[in-house]
Amino acid sequence: MTTLKNDLLIRALLKQPVERTPVWMMRQAGRYLPEYRQVREQAGSFLSLCTNPELACEVTMQPLRRFGFDAAILFSDILTVPDAMGLGLYFTDGEGPKFKHPVRSAADIEKLPIPDPESELAYVMDAVRRISKTLQGSVPLIGFSGSPWTLATYMVEGSGSKNFQHIKSLMYDQPKSMHQLLDKVTQAVAAYLNAQIAAGADAVMLFDTWGGMLTTQGYAEFSLAYAKQVRALLNTDQPGRKIPTILFTKGGGLWLEVMAEAGYDALGLDWQTDISQARRRVGNQVALQGNMDPVALYAQPEIIKQEVHKILHGYGQGSGHVFNLGHGILPDVDPSHVQAMVEAVMQYQPVEPIQAARPVC
Amino acid sequence: MTTLKNDLLIRALLKQPVERTPVWMMRQAGRYLPEYRQVREQAGSFLSLCTNPELACEVTMQPLRRFGFDAAILFSDILTVPDAMGLGLYFTDGEGPKFKHPVRSAADIEKLPIPDPESELAYVMDAVRRISKTLQGSVPLIGFSGSPWTLATYMVEGSGSKNFQHIKSLMYDQPKSMHQLLDKVTQAVAAYLNAQIAAGADAVMLFDTWGGMLTTQGYAEFSLAYAKQVRALLNTDQPGRKIPTILFTKGGGLWLEVMAEAGYDALGLDWQTDISQARRRVGNQVALQGNMDPVALYAQPEIIKQEVHKILHGYGQGSGHVFNLGHGILPDVDPSHVQAMVEAVMQYQPVEPIQAARPVC
Repeated sequence: MTTLKNDLLIRALLKQPVERTPVWMMRQAGRYLPEYRQVREQAGSFLSLCTNPELACEVTMQPLRRFGFDAAILFSDILTVPDAMGLGLYFTDGEGPKFKHPVRSAADIEKLPIPDPESELAYVMDAVRRISKTLQGSVPLIGFSGSPWTLATYMVEGSGSKNFQHIKSLMYDQPKSMHQLLDKVTQAVAAYLNAQIAAGADAVMLFDTWGGMLTTQGYAEFSLAYAKQVRALLNTDQPGRKIPTILFTKGGGLWLEVMAEAGYDALGLDWQTDISQARRRVGNQVALQGNMDPVALYAQPEIIKQEVHKILHGYGQGSGHVFNLGHGILPDVDPSHVQAMVEAVMQYQPVEPIQAARPVC
Repeated sequence: MTTLKNDLLIRALLKQPVERTPVWMMRQAGRYLPEYRQVREQAGSFLSLCTNPELACEVTMQPLRRFGFDAAILFSDILTVPDAMGLGLYFTDGEGPKFKHPVRSAADIEKLPIPDPESELAYVMDAVRRISKTLQGSVPLIGFSGSPWTLATYMVEGSGSKNFQHIKSLMYDQPKSMHQLLDKVTQAVAAYLNAQIAAGADAVMLFDTWGGMLTTQGYAEFSLAYAKQVRALLNTDQPGRKIPTILFTKGGGLWLEVMAEAGYDALGLDWQTDISQARRRVGNQVALQGNMDPVALYAQPEIIKQEVHKILHGYGQGSGHVFNLGHGILPDVDPSHVQAMVEAVMQYQPVEPIQAARPVC
């Protein structure tokens, strides 16, 4: 394995001493970058871009060249897994992702296969290998997957949803079938993440985009329980390196204490949660990643700098913080505003140097 | 003033002893009822229905006749206030409400008038008087308004929004203008609610639909501070009656402790928040209203009954609970499922009779 030249991300996620807070950005390879839009056009469609390892590698590298982020994140989509389970992913203009064959019945669930990532998601593993090779150990590569609950919502709804009527009806009326579906998706997600680790991912993140739509009890039973199972199945102890893990539930600020018990090294925070309160609540059990309001990037650079400082100051002394947005960057943000954010993080002078994490109180 | 025959809602909101938990439902007068759809068609448009006191009264009464709810809620829309401030409300099919003249600049804010409810919102006050008279004191009538923050979001965005880019840009880049706008809307909202109280409303509720889109600090400064100001301006001590007040912030579960300090008698809870945890957090400071997942109404009646029992049991002994959904009922729910919910609440037998609220631990 290549030794990382910049391993700030890994150390912060593991709460080891760091010289400064590392920074990357959800959806950092994306439409706000003109160079991304050019490659996207060349690819023809979003899906063609995801399934082309060479182009996926190129757009993964773009934001690193421009901003010097402390991590790369695999360019892909969370719905590649259900697609490989036979649901037929496609994208419509303006309406987002859809499936040709949504899962609606116990029979549909019964016949779902668990894909072998190296054959049925080979294009993702090829992209991971290519990105890893291109990075040459400059910064860590983050692999990722949607959470079982979040993938299941798309699989049952057949598309994005406002009210989640179909999946919640399954959950309320047929909890056994719901659990059977989540079991299968959990197996698929764990295999997928382990394949990414084997292909070169240095850290992995689970995106639970729709966990926040559940009740507190529903979240514990249908989302967090399966995020825990995924974590237990991950091969994070690799020869000579430990793979840190991150769990991000959008809208999950109410549940940080139980999330901190799920076995992940770090929790992603959305922008709603105050990071200093979050840290008091989870103590030193996990590192925290986040959490600037993505919409703050429309503000003037001077204001962006203030918002960055609030978050860095809010987290406070000690390692265990990865700076990020509270959700993905929006497509029409001015790249110079991202530059202002990155510089504000990198130039921040805390009162004391950042030592290993210690108890907060 | 008419003495109320059924004042369970008022007593529960004021944490006085009740024989059973009262129940009503957000958007209880709405599209899920065939009799509503008939009147809506007769009116021609949603706005024509809102502005016609006779028809607004009729649809307000419909769910009471069918289900025997413990409260009526004025049939209206939260955007009547900005409309009266000159923004030109209109509705488009499938895209929801829009304004012809959104507020975007300091100059736009400067020239906004504060409407006199009795002249510029006379159709609402006429509806309140007509409903109050029609009810003949059978159950209380709840008046309502959007919160200053929530109304401001629509006024600045010009429509519903996903990311709230325009209002948040105003907030981040021009906080003084943002505060000036919120000051004006606060005056308008307080006058509007006081006029509803004078016209016969027995309780009032502030709907903060979009407070949950803010950061913790942003919520305190731009939403809750103005909800507090509205509360301080309300004429709740009426001759022979006290008008209970309810504050509902969708997605505000993280902030219950500070919301409980805002001077309202009760907090509305969305479905994400566990009601037993919420009660432990706010103690006996406020009553709680909520909070079944609206999507649970698609489940089978037996499941609905179980969900109702979980919430009633979760709240526990003592007065101070008003049963409701965690958000408005969805338009295609089967009315017989609402019946199942109402019966489950009304027939619930707690272990002990419901006495006045006492400390929880």
